[in-house]
Amino acid sequence: MISVLRIGHRPYRDKRITTHVALVARAFGADSIFIDTHDDKIEETVHSVCNRFGGNFSIQTGVSPMKIIKKWEGSIVHLTMYGETVKESLKVLDTKKDLLLIVGAEKVPPQFYDIADINVAVGNQPHSEVAAVAIFLDRFTNQSWEHDQFDGEMTIIPSKHGKKVISTDDNKK
Amino acid sequence: MISVLRIGHRPYRDKRITTHVALVARAFGADSIFIDTHDDKIEETVHSVCNRFGGNFSIQTGVSPMKIIKKWEGSIVHLTMYGETVKESLKVLDTKKDLLLIVGAEKVPPQFYDIADINVAVGNQPHSEVAAVAIFLDRFTNQSWEHDQFDGEMTIIPSKHGKKVISTDDNKK
Repeated sequence: MISVLRIGHRPYRDKRITTHVALVARAFGADSIFIDTHDDKIEETVHSVCNRFGGNFSIQTGVSPMKIIKKWEGSIVHLTMYGETVKESLKVLDTKKDLLLIVGAEKVPPQFYDIADINVAVGNQPHSEVAAVAIFLDRFTNQSWEHDQFDGEMTIIPSKHGKKVISTDDNKK
Repeated sequence: MISVLRIGHRPYRDKRITTHVALVARAFGADSIFIDTHDDKIEETVHSVCNRFGGNFSIQTGVSPMKIIKKWEGSIVHLTMYGETVKESLKVLDTKKDLLLIVGAEKVPPQFYDIADINVAVGNQPHSEVAAVAIFLDRFTNQSWEHDQFDGEMTIIPSKHGKKVISTDDNKK
């Protein structure tokens, strides 16, 4: 079980970035995302993607981060540009344990740095929490996302040119 | 030389996502980004990061994508969820050649699918162009970004807890 916990989400300002974080979580092997602030729009977008493209990814918004953290029984990683390198973190993290991956929007309060088992940086340069989630999950899961089958109504077939899409909905008609 | 070409950028709607694309390009080993629509704000943000954190990354907005493409002498890759897998693409791409990495915001016109040497998908699931740029550059450069030195005024030291920042500006005072 891998879950992403998005904290400091501001629906107006962060709508698109948090949506990207959620979809990246789903595509790179997470099972769910929790978002601290209630946001119907993001829930709708994620449900729509899951309905069309499959998988069992779930989303819950309007959660208390500390409640999620306190009842979490696996590892807790906080992604921040100030953290330890991914390589070093994977020497101490047990990748067989459940993972809660905390990723902040606005400035993250100090208690999250303290409560995490480890703070991890995907590079110590400023870039994007969207990329950080993707690269960290890529490493943590040992690239297993490349072989994930989502079995949705829509399946895209890799193609050097053009678009190849299989829609099982079409087949039913 | 690796450049990212962002097409279909709409300053109001895409400001934050395109900024993340630019910063990810810089952090994961690209030398520059070209953005089709003129956008002073993104230029300012990227210059500010480069001034503080170093490196020789450059940004140019308000460019003609077709002019850039026509004079490009290396490989041209278009990132799209409909494309070939990254693994397959790296069997045909010469990673020693210059790379132009095209990444769209709104719906990408068909001519870009045709003009690219190869269309590449970072997974065939909907997620984020920010993550796609990060993962593709990670693979294309064989993770060399992990060892990049930016030599900026500000350097962050990896840390399991807390924040460790060295500022050469402080040293001068």
